[in-house]
Amino acid sequence: MASVRIREAKEGDCGDILRLIRELAEFEKLSDQVKISEEALRADGFGDNPFYHCLVAEILPAPGKLLGQGIGSKIIKKVAEVALDKGCSQFRLAVLDWNQRAMDLYKALGAQDLTEAEGWHFFCFQGEATRKLAGK
Amino acid sequence: MASVRIREAKEGDCGDILRLIRELAEFEKLSDQVKISEEALRADGFGDNPFYHCLVAEILPAPGKLLGQGIGSKIIKKVAEVALDKGCSQFRLAVLDWNQRAMDLYKALGAQDLTEAEGWHFFCFQGEATRKLAGK
Repeated sequence: MASVRIREAKEGDCGDILRLIRELAEFEKLSDQVKISEEALRADGFGDNPFYHCLVAEILPAPGKLLGQGIGSKIIKKVAEVALDKGCSQFRLAVLDWNQRAMDLYKALGAQDLTEAEGWHFFCFQGEATRKLAGK
Repeated sequence: MASVRIREAKEGDCGDILRLIRELAEFEKLSDQVKISEEALRADGFGDNPFYHCLVAEILPAPGKLLGQGIGSKIIKKVAEVALDKGCSQFRLAVLDWNQRAMDLYKALGAQDLTEAEGWHFFCFQGEATRKLAGK
């Protein structure tokens, strides 16, 4: 088994975080949507009023594949701990409907698919629509 | 036409905000999901590190119905202005798939349905699942 340590991200992690964002987007076939720079990641996450918080899983090298070693479950458990510590009563994830492996994991851990169960859809105002609405 | 003024919420608005949350949940047939108290709304939105920000639309009394007067559009335009001011490149809304009026409005204003277009689903870890994951 790989040894995993989960900790809060530091500003110096932003280069690695951007690399992982790009790798995830490639897997999701949405690479064209990654427009953020390392500089913006630093500014947004590590200023006075951070826009996001981030956990990092450090994985010590181990023989064999990383898949199936329970790393995803460990990260989600950590998110649950942080959520309770911060006073949250629930937390949500976004998942693509063809990512069966992720959906199976989240359901096995107790999540409910609110899009399937209640009909919630994500609506997004992208950059151009947002600027047009704001008259800019 | 009704006269509308949109402003940032103040702590003293929390009673009215909770009433509107309850009215929306009733319309969404999800009243059993409203568990928040006015006290929690005050603490979460008006402490040192607020969990949410809120705009309030003050509507001066006008004869006739409120529906169809463009109040929803005005609020979304204001959200777009705030988003750009804060450095956001996009913003998202959650909408129930039977709420045709809301979906039509958002699409008319330029939003994209990411659930329909790309297959994004909302997954939610509710309170009991979160506590179980965190071992609490």
